[in-house]
Order: sequence, then structure tokens, then C-alpha cells
Amino acid sequence: MAFESKIKTIEWTDNISRMIDQRILPYEFKTVDVKTADEMYTAIKDMIVRGAPAIGIAGAHGVSLAAIELSKKINEKSVFLNELQKKAEYLKSSRPTAVNLMWGVDKQMKLARSISGSISDIAESLKENGIKLENEDIEINKKMGDFGAEVVPKGAAILTHCNAGALATVGYGTALGVIRSAYAKDPTIKVFADETRPRQQGARLTTWELTQDGIPTTLITDGMCSYFMSKGMIDMVVVGADRIAANGDTANKIGTFTVAIAAKYHNIPFYIAAPLSTIDISIQSGKEIPIEERSHEEVTHINGDWICAKDVNIINPGFDVTPNELITGIITEKGILKPDFKTSIFNAFKNN
Amino acid sequence: MAFESKIKTIEWTDNISRMIDQRILPYEFKTVDVKTADEMYTAIKDMIVRGAPAIGIAGAHGVSLAAIELSKKINEKSVFLNELQKKAEYLKSSRPTAVNLMWGVDKQMKLARSISGSISDIAESLKENGIKLENEDIEINKKMGDFGAEVVPKGAAILTHCNAGALATVGYGTALGVIRSAYAKDPTIKVFADETRPRQQGARLTTWELTQDGIPTTLITDGMCSYFMSKGMIDMVVVGADRIAANGDTANKIGTFTVAIAAKYHNIPFYIAAPLSTIDISIQSGKEIPIEERSHEEVTHINGDWICAKDVNIINPGFDVTPNELITGIITEKGILKPDFKTSIFNAFKNN
Repeated sequence: MAFESKIKTIEWTDNISRMIDQRILPYEFKTVDVKTADEMYTAIKDMIVRGAPAIGIAGAHGVSLAAIELSKKINEKSVFLNELQKKAEYLKSSRPTAVNLMWGVDKQMKLARSISGSISDIAESLKENGIKLENEDIEINKKMGDFGAEVVPKGAAILTHCNAGALATVGYGTALGVIRSAYAKDPTIKVFADETRPRQQGARLTTWELTQDGIPTTLITDGMCSYFMSKGMIDMVVVGADRIAANGDTANKIGTFTVAIAAKYHNIPFYIAAPLSTIDISIQSGKEIPIEERSHEEVTHINGDWICAKDVNIINPGFDVTPNELITGIITEKGILKPDFKTSIFNAFKNN
Repeated sequence: MAFESKIKTIEWTDNISRMIDQRILPYEFKTVDVKTADEMYTAIKDMIVRGAPAIGIAGAHGVSLAAIELSKKINEKSVFLNELQKKAEYLKSSRPTAVNLMWGVDKQMKLARSISGSISDIAESLKENGIKLENEDIEINKKMGDFGAEVVPKGAAILTHCNAGALATVGYGTALGVIRSAYAKDPTIKVFADETRPRQQGARLTTWELTQDGIPTTLITDGMCSYFMSKGMIDMVVVGADRIAANGDTANKIGTFTVAIAAKYHNIPFYIAAPLSTIDISIQSGKEIPIEERSHEEVTHINGDWICAKDVNIINPGFDVTPNELITGIITEKGILKPDFKTSIFNAFKNN
């Protein structure tokens, strides 16, 4: 059963890509119109749009925008495709960890190369395909939500980390999609949202979007999970993913690994919710996933204010990798993959 | 070998208790003069002074202040002692979790009742005893530091949570006292400091006091510990304590339990550093330790700014309890207590 979220995170409209500015939530709701591939690079890098599936669509839209721009000044198809490829590479370099970005861009480039028509035919096809991927994202999320809702116990309290919600996708969510579908079936479920320092996507985005949809949400700080787990106040954990290796090792927002260890210690099921496009079968384990090192200011400042001594060292990895042994299941649009993940992932792709 | 810290957190001087205002660090360094027992109640409750050993001394000074006040208006000794007891109970109600507060206040009340002299003799003795406890706190910390330094490997990277430093004691520290003593022997050691949301004592206080003393410190957010542990970048964990039960279960700042689980998962030694006054042998396990529930604003606001949706629920436990099975050793002024803690704690008190 699907729950309709009011949120549309990214949307192709009138030859531009319109997105919710996630940097200023929950203080202000504003959309940004992205008109060029270069603007899309900045929008992804600066996290106006963020969340692996959403930046997959942003990447696809970025290629559509590049094609429109280039079609206005290039007549030679091979030159056009070369220049489009350069823009594609540039877009992919905006953030390194989430594989969906590469997936969205590469999907568009494969389509561009397959079209036998004119440059404007290619631009038109890319635009249409971007819209198609956008719509498919919501459908995929809803399928995942339905599969995931089956493993949510009646009246469960579900802990989530970061924001794998409508705001991380086109408009329904992966981990929060599971929660939306579960809530549609059982309005007695409730959510614990980790704050998710340093960028506080849990505090800023997850509490905003869940309370917008009326789902009861308790905000906790990142260190508190074990306390609530030990009190029997958390029944399961569901988080999203930025990249999953062929063996199930899962890169997600920094802090996820710590929550997974705490869940294991307390025998609480720990699920990943992610579309198959987040699984990178080209890499064998989490060791091969590049981890983005982000700005020190994310740690030293909150809302523009210093929060620590000025001469302290900072290391700010944006993601960590949860080893497959801590994961109960990976909720996808094709069903819930179970250990051993090497086999279940292989089979999911074989039948895809 | 002892390292001299420049910090004096709380000090009896000119018939008042002078303390560093820890609410405004690291932005501003200012001391506050506490002149009455009621002002001391507020200073403890509002966390002008915080940290279990420091509030133990604050409690003792509070009784000294109460005795000075009451001695000016009461002539009858039994009335004086009754009124002093009321002030003592009031002081003890300022914060419920740290047992050192009860220890410091009760130690003074026991002394007050034992003195056969006049009211002004009692007031004078309490004042002197407050100063004695203050000086003993530093000596105890240095002894703990020396014992603790013996288990710090050469060049170790030590993770700590919250602030169990000079600022949590009179002037040397428990967990950070171990770090100071280790650093005096081996200046190649380094520290990882957890931010420690919601009140960020790690970011605000630990980075401030360690960089003041020139000890290399990296600030990380609370969720990051598992990432750095998995990379082999953390060799041991040392934290303080607010109350330790007779079986070794340890209440400390919220988030400690999560770090302890992560350390266990990675086979990294996890030490508590605390004076015997933090051990409450009257309770058998951590289940009996009252956990302070603090203001919701600590979670919803940072530096006065909202950080989340306005209609979110909040639960804000100030402490959690790390079960004894996760603790490698408890570093005290009498040596390092090892499992089983029930026996080693019993023996430490038997010989005390």
C-alpha cells in the first residue's frame, strides 16, 4: 500500500531541472531552477540536491541540460557526443561515493550513443529519458516500500540515520519509503531519527519530511542509539545506501556503521533500503568504495558558528562502510535480498 | 610523571567558590564567583561547573558557603545543623546522576556533625575541608594518570568522549589526566575527541583544554568512531564516569555506551578513568543508576538556533550505562581495577 508524499525533490519542467534547496531546510522551503550542466555540477557538489537516488536523477537531468546547451552550438554529431561525454565526466566528478550518480549519467550517455537520428533527436530523447527515470524512481521506491513494509513488526519503532527519504529521491524515499508504506498499513508505527552530524540531515531533513507527512518522529543525537536500543525502545533499523558492493558491504552516510554495530549488539534487525541502481556489481567489497572527504567546516561550524577550539585537527569522511555481516537484509524493488549477499545480489542481477 | 595543566576549574578563595564558566567556552574565558549555596545549586544545575569530580567539589564548597551564611543568623547548634542539612539536600538535588555530588556534600555533612565546637568552628572546618578535598582531587587525578599511562601504548591514538578533563575536575582530569600523564612520558601520543552531542562538551571543552596544553587533538563527530576504529586509527578508548555500580556498570555522558560497543566490535581496549568517589558500592548494577532527563532545547537548538522541524518529539537522556562486559579496566587512584569488577571493586573498598 503506497502513501502519497507531498514532497517532489527534483522535477524536470519547462526544459530545466527544478529542485528543493535542501541546504536551507527546515528553515525555509524554496526551489532552485537548474538550467545548465555546470549549474547541476554545483547543485550536486554543494548539496542543494543530495541523497544517492536523487543525485542519480540529477546526473541524468544534467546530461539532458548539457545536450540542450550543446545542440545550440554544435552541428557535427561526433563533436557533439565528444563534448557531451566531457560534460558527463564533469557531472560524475561532483561527488565520488554514490554510484547512482554514475548510473544516471552513464544511462543517458549510453542512450545518446545509441540514437541514429540528429543531434536534436538525441537532445529530445535524453530529456524524455530523464523524465522517465524520474517517474521510475518513485515507482521503484514504492515497490521497495511494499517489500520493506512486510518486515516491519506491528507498532514498531524504527530508527533511521541521515535522510533516505523523499528528499533523497524523487519523491517517496528508500528507507523512509519503507516507513511510509509501513505507516500506510499501520499508523501505530513510529520513527527515531538520528540527528546525523556533521550535516544534520536527520535533524534538518528527516524530521521535516516525516512531520510534513504526519508520521510521529523522535529526534535523537547520534550517540543515543544504544541507550534506546537497550531500553527496548527500538525494534528495527532501516537506512539508505550510497553504494553497495557485490558482497553486500554498504557505504552510507558517516555514522551508519556505528548504528549497525549497536543494532547487532542488541540483536535488532538492521536493513538497508536501496534500489538495484545503488548496487555496484563491478566491485567485490566495500574496501573498493571511494570515501568522499568533505570540508572541515562541516565539523567545526554549525549554522556558521564555530563550535570548538580553533587549532584542532579535523578529518571529515562523508561516508562509512557497513560490513555485510551486520546487515539483516537489503530491501530492493525486486524484493529483500538476504545473506549470503554475494549470492542474492548475483541472482538479483542475473534476473534483472 | 605529571604534566602541569594551566587550568583551575574550581577554587576556594576569599570565602567564595570561583569557577570557570564552562557554558561559554571555547568562545570566552570567564570565571564566576559563587557566594551562596543557592547560587551553587544554580551553577551546578545550569552547568557553569560540570563533570562528576568537579561537581563533587562544588557540592562540598556549597556546604561551606551554606555554613558561612547560616552561621551569621543562627545561634542554636541543632537548628544550625538542621538548616545545613536542608541546604545539603537542596544541593544534592541539583543533578541526579553523578554520585560525586552526593559524596562531596555527604562528606561535609558528616564532618559538620562530628565537630564538638561552636557553629563558627564548624563553618571554619567545613571551609578547610573543602579546600583539602579540592587539593586531594588533583593528587588523586595525578595518581590515576600515572596508573593509566602505563597501559597507553607508545604513540597511541586515544579516543575520548565528552570532557573528563581538567574542566571536569579541579584541574588535571580523569580520562584526560591519563592522557596528560601519557603525553608527559610520550609526546607522540594523540587524541581523538568525540564532539559529544547534544551539549558538545567534547568539541567545546576537550578540544579547548587539550589544545591549551599543546596535546595534538582531532575532533570527530559522534558517529565517526567506527570508521576510524576500522581503519586502525584508534588504539584505545578512555572516558570518565558519573557513577559506577558495585559490578562495574558505568554511567557516563550519553553516547559512551555506543563508543564502548564499537570498541568491543573492533577489539580495542575501553577504559574508564574515575576516582573511587565515583563508585557507588551501595548499588549492585547500572540498572539502579538514575538517568537525568535534560531539556529538549539541548537537542533542538545549537547555539540558540533551531536545527530541526518544530513539531518533532524529543527524549534527552543525559547519560547512558555501559555494561561491565564492555569495559577493559577502571583506572582509579588505587590502581587499575580489572574484571571481574564485582571482586576488584569489593577489594579496592575493603583496603580503602
